[in-house]
Order: sequence, then C-alpha cells, then structure tokens
Amino acid sequence: MEQPFFEAPELDVAQWFNTEAPPTLAGLRGKVVVLHAFQMLCPGCVRAGLPQAQKIAAIFPADQVAVIGLHTVFEHHAAMTPVALSAFIHEYRLTFPIAVDRPSEDGPIPRTMAAYGMRGTPSLVLIDRMGLVRRHAFGAEEDLKVGAEIALLMAEAG
Amino acid sequence: MEQPFFEAPELDVAQWFNTEAPPTLAGLRGKVVVLHAFQMLCPGCVRAGLPQAQKIAAIFPADQVAVIGLHTVFEHHAAMTPVALSAFIHEYRLTFPIAVDRPSEDGPIPRTMAAYGMRGTPSLVLIDRMGLVRRHAFGAEEDLKVGAEIALLMAEAG
Amino acid sequence: MEQPFFEAPELDVAQWFNTEAPPTLAGLRGKVVVLHAFQMLCPGCVRAGLPQAQKIAAIFPADQVAVIGLHTVFEHHAAMTPVALSAFIHEYRLTFPIAVDRPSEDGPIPRTMAAYGMRGTPSLVLIDRMGLVRRHAFGAEEDLKVGAEIALLMAEAG
Amino acid sequence: MEQPFFEAPELDVAQWFNTEAPPTLAGLRGKVVVLHAFQMLCPGCVRAGLPQAQKIAAIFPADQVAVIGLHTVFEHHAAMTPVALSAFIHEYRLTFPIAVDRPSEDGPIPRTMAAYGMRGTPSLVLIDRMGLVRRHAFGAEEDLKVGAEIALLMAEAG
Repeated sequence: MEQPFFEAPELDVAQWFNTEAPPTLAGLRGKVVVLHAFQMLCPGCVRAGLPQAQKIAAIFPADQVAVIGLHTVFEHHAAMTPVALSAFIHEYRLTFPIAVDRPSEDGPIPRTMAAYGMRGTPSLVLIDRMGLVRRHAFGAEEDLKVGAEIALLMAEAG
Repeated sequence: MEQPFFEAPELDVAQWFNTEAPPTLAGLRGKVVVLHAFQMLCPGCVRAGLPQAQKIAAIFPADQVAVIGLHTVFEHHAAMTPVALSAFIHEYRLTFPIAVDRPSEDGPIPRTMAAYGMRGTPSLVLIDRMGLVRRHAFGAEEDLKVGAEIALLMAEAG
Repeated sequence: MEQPFFEAPELDVAQWFNTEAPPTLAGLRGKVVVLHAFQMLCPGCVRAGLPQAQKIAAIFPADQVAVIGLHTVFEHHAAMTPVALSAFIHEYRLTFPIAVDRPSEDGPIPRTMAAYGMRGTPSLVLIDRMGLVRRHAFGAEEDLKVGAEIALLMAEAG
Repeated sequence: MEQPFFEAPELDVAQWFNTEAPPTLAGLRGKVVVLHAFQMLCPGCVRAGLPQAQKIAAIFPADQVAVIGLHTVFEHHAAMTPVALSAFIHEYRLTFPIAVDRPSEDGPIPRTMAAYGMRGTPSLVLIDRMGLVRRHAFGAEEDLKVGAEIALLMAEAG
C-alpha cells in the first residue's frame, strides 16, 4: 500500500443496478468498500476482475464489507449503454450493486473515473472505514493478496 | 454424426464484419464450413465457443476450411446491436468473418437461426464440401472431437 | 473459524527439504504459520493446494508468515518415499521448507498427521503468533478466504 | 506432418499396467496408435499431456484407435519406479494401457525413448495403420490439431 492515502471522492452516478437503495460512500462510512471499476466489453474484467468481485461479495460479511461495481465507460460508448449493461449483468449473474459512472461533457472519461485518476479497466479501489483510499490497482490482482488487504482494513478500527 | 444430412440453408445476413467480400455458402461449396453461432453476451460463447472458433481459423488451412461466425441475437436485442458487436469483435480480437443474422419480423428468433432450427448459443454447425449439414451441436464441444470431425470432412472428396 | 482453539502440536519430522535450519513451531512463535499438509501423488494437492502454498510464500512477508509443507504419507508408502519427494520438489519448483512427517509404527497414518487429526490431503492449518491452531481445513480452499484469514492473524498482537 | 515417415520401432517394455493382454505395435497394425510418452513427475505431462491422452481414449473408438502410455524415465530414476507409477496411475484415474520403457544399461535414456529419438516429455507419437510414424511432437499440443491428425489417419485405408 505504497500510495499516499487520500479521501475517496464521492461516486458520481448516472444510474444504479442491483440495488433499491443506492449507496453513497458517505453512507458506507464505517465499512470497508471494495470498488471494482470495469467495462462490460473488457476481456480482463470478464475473465478476472468481475469473478473476483463476485467472490468477494460472497465470502466477506456484508455488514462489514461493501462491494460496488462501477461501469466506467471510456471507449465504445455507443456499445456499452445502460441497456446493454443490464443484459450483461443478467447473463453473468452479477448480484452486487453496480453503478453507471456519469459521462462527462468534456471528453470520453466518465466523471468518477477521472476523479480517481484510474488508468483503465479493471481497476480495484479499496476504501477503509474512514473513507480513505488505501489501495488503487490497475489490472488483474491475485486473490490471496486482495483477500489479505481487505481483511487488514476490516481489522482496523472504524 | 447422428443427424440425417440436409442441405445447409443459405445464410440470411443483415451485415458482415471482418470481411470485404461477404461469403455465401453457395460460394464456399468445395470447402468445409465451420459455422459458429453465438451471442456476444452469452458467457458460454465467450468462454468456450468463440475461442474454439478462433483456434480453428488459426489451425486449419483457409483454402480448405472456412470459419464463419453468426451473431444470432434472440434475446436482449437492444443490447446486442451491430455497433455493440463491432466493439466486442475489436476487444476480443476476433479475426474471422462474422455475420449478423437478419432479424425476423415475426418474433425474437432471427432468420438463419430459425432456418437451421438452432436451440440456443453457442451452436456449432459443420457443413461438408457438398453443402450438407453434417454436424449440429448446441453447447460447448470438446476440441479433440471437433478437430476430428472437421478433419474427416476435409478428407472427403468435394 | 469455528473450531475451538488448541495449542498446535509440535511437528514430528523425519527429514527436511529446502532448509538448512529446520524450523520448529516453538521457534516460530511470534509468526503466523501456514502449515500445508500434502502427498506428492494427491491430484488436488498438485492442482490447488501446493500452488496456493507457493503463492502464500511469495506474497506474504517471510518475517511475519512462515509457510511449511508437510508430506503426510498415509497411503502408497512405497511410492512416496523421501527420494521421490526430493525429485517432486525439484520438478515443481517448490521453494518453501518441506518436512517429511515421521512414519508411525502403529499404522499407515504418520505422527504429525495423527496429532492434528487431519482427515486427508490437502489439509491447511493456520497457527497464530501464540502457537494456537486457528483454522484447520480439509480440501481446496478459496485464495480470497485464505488470504483474509492469514492477514487477520498477522494483525493480531504476538 | 513435416517429418519423413519411418517404421515405428517396436516398444521395448519392462512392465505393463492397465492391461491383461500387453499389446505390441505389430499386433496393432490396422489401427491408429497414439503413443504418449511421459514421466509421472513431469508437470507438463500431468497438466496437459496425460489429460489429453485420457480424453483421446474416451472420444475415439477403441477398435480403430489405440492409446498407449509410455513411461520413459530418463531422470530421477530412483523416484519414478514402477511401484510409484502404479500409485500415480491409481490416483490420477488413468485407464489406458501404460508401458514402462525398458531401462538401458548404457545410460539414463530408456530403450524405446532412444529408438524413437524423443527429446523429452511429454512426447506424442502418431502411428498410422501401416505402422509408420506420421507425427512426432515434443511438448504440449493443441487438442484441435491432435484430434484432426488422428482423424486423418483414421480416414486412410489400412
């Protein structure tokens, strides 16, 4: 965890899936938040990132760890629409809350992706109980390592 | 190969990708045709069927075996549009010719899919040098078996 | 971690590989110990357990987490001899210390395996900094879960 | 199949497993023979070669295609003994006939391995109905390709 800690920017969301009560990072304070940024047509997300996020949601207790998917479309905008994402979520049996990152008027990078300085997809962000970004990784990450990092954040006081 | 042989219905195609000279089954007479029907949001197609089709195209000689992808959208029509398919083909690095099955005005099943009586995706159809359907499988198929079936059709006189 | 905690029985070892200074659990007090019991001809160990142990040794800091392999031969004794194990370790590029569990004169189950009440291979035992058994699993375990469990034990005071 | 064809040298076998009627290449004339050379402690054999051989035995008709395993021990001789191989065959549920290549008095390479000029394990040899070596590969081979090659040999007259 070599990065300097900084406060996690609030999610800027155009639409939610898989939740009736859209979460905010402010409202999740006290929990560890696993933010998984993906694009539905990104092969590395489909093969590695999303299955990892789904397993995290199944293994860690929901009252302590919140898994949130973030659809950060920065290319192929006409292909990866919310209606397409909805079908994708259904076909891949994803069950955790998934947010559509709000498109920007200034360019292809959506707003939350820009606020976090993400370099592409998949990106994994771990946010501690205080709301600080503690880990920010681009690309596939080892399950053993991610499991350990989440647990260490769980072990910290809120 | 337990099915009775029948003449392969001509492809009814709305649009082609990855080819400047759209093929027809009539024009491919004399070659073995591997017709791989898929939907871009079908997990079994992404994991097994499409990688198999791509490997077939790489391994078998193009002057004897033609691999054709057929995008048979029968659900989530608003998600799996041609523009979305185009992005999918790009991201998954698919290089063989891919046809968009022509939508029907009578229901969700597109026309070529209906003409072949396909039950879903992935579906694999092997067509011999004479234009007869010799194998029609629904679901993932063993590479060893598919390789053998293609080779046996190659070994037949045209 | 549903099992009652109990003090980890000392390893009863006939021979060591991959170490010039054979460790003891007593000497490792203060570290978390990951004890991976296996047999070299157990397919589940080769496919899942041993790669997991090797990854743990690579990912976690050696001054806090000790990974120890334990060759608990309880069947095919004439096949899984120390000389065979030596070749296996070489071929599979295993680098963490590996102990040969001492054979018993009373039956096929070696002594450390019996002392821990292991049911077969692979078995995973996590021992905390105080020398207590905190987790005892038979069969393949999810990397995410094991990573979390190790990290939680690391986070405890010694 | 770039190699010049040559008559397959007869197997020189010290011991057989999984068969009560030890086969000879002479006796198998008229069938296609898939000869899979392996060592039980060779990771590539365990991961790729042996599962492929087992699948070939399951998919192709036994009256036309004979699958034979050949344990060509050229290193770690004290580890990969017949008794160890017997346990390995049992644990990995291998069901096709497996021969122990006869050790040489002149060096570490056993006799059949030397006669075929194999470079290591896994090695795959395809022998046609006439008893000629038609394919000789070192290392893991694509299922699609191997399936095709076997089928082409099946399609030839005996």
